[in-house]
Amino acid sequence: MEFRWSKAEKKIAKQAFDLAYKRKCQKIIEQIKKRKLSNNEDIWTLGDYIHKKRKEIDRKFDYRYSQLILVFSTFIKENLLSLEDLAGLNNEKIDTINKILKL
Amino acid sequence: MEFRWSKAEKKIAKQAFDLAYKRKCQKIIEQIKKRKLSNNEDIWTLGDYIHKKRKEIDRKFDYRYSQLILVFSTFIKENLLSLEDLAGLNNEKIDTINKILKL
Repeated sequence: MEFRWSKAEKKIAKQAFDLAYKRKCQKIIEQIKKRKLSNNEDIWTLGDYIHKKRKEIDRKFDYRYSQLILVFSTFIKENLLSLEDLAGLNNEKIDTINKILKL
Repeated sequence: MEFRWSKAEKKIAKQAFDLAYKRKCQKIIEQIKKRKLSNNEDIWTLGDYIHKKRKEIDRKFDYRYSQLILVFSTFIKENLLSLEDLAGLNNEKIDTINKILKL
């Protein structure tokens, strides 16, 4: 999907992306804090969890403009963003996101 | 260093080794619990810490009888074991450990 991104839209996109990252990290931190760490094995389970989350973030947080509409759609599906967070993107982009969300 | 290990000594060695592992893990758990996890970055720092500790344990917790005297000496240096935990090993082994500790 190739869209043109205006300067104003790029700013909105960057803010939304950073917000999604912040929320994602917050969720991870909550999950980590819930862990009891009572057995030795819990250390390595926690390490594996963080490793998995790092790989997930590397994969999902792709800030290429060619990917961004798909990326934002995924964030919305995962409750990391709402459409309101993307207010200011042009209709074509919002429509495309809405179509992806209905898939 | 090649020592002969009697059946009784093998049992003592195994118990001491497991005790050192338990204490090591306990120290790691204490360190993890001290962490604040206030910033996003703290997640990855914690992941790196656990990864480093796992590698350290893989390296130091070597249960080959050919390595065990050296391994126990390291544990004593790091306050994971005391000489009392090794009571029952023969004099030759204890003397060797004492010599290593004085190095």
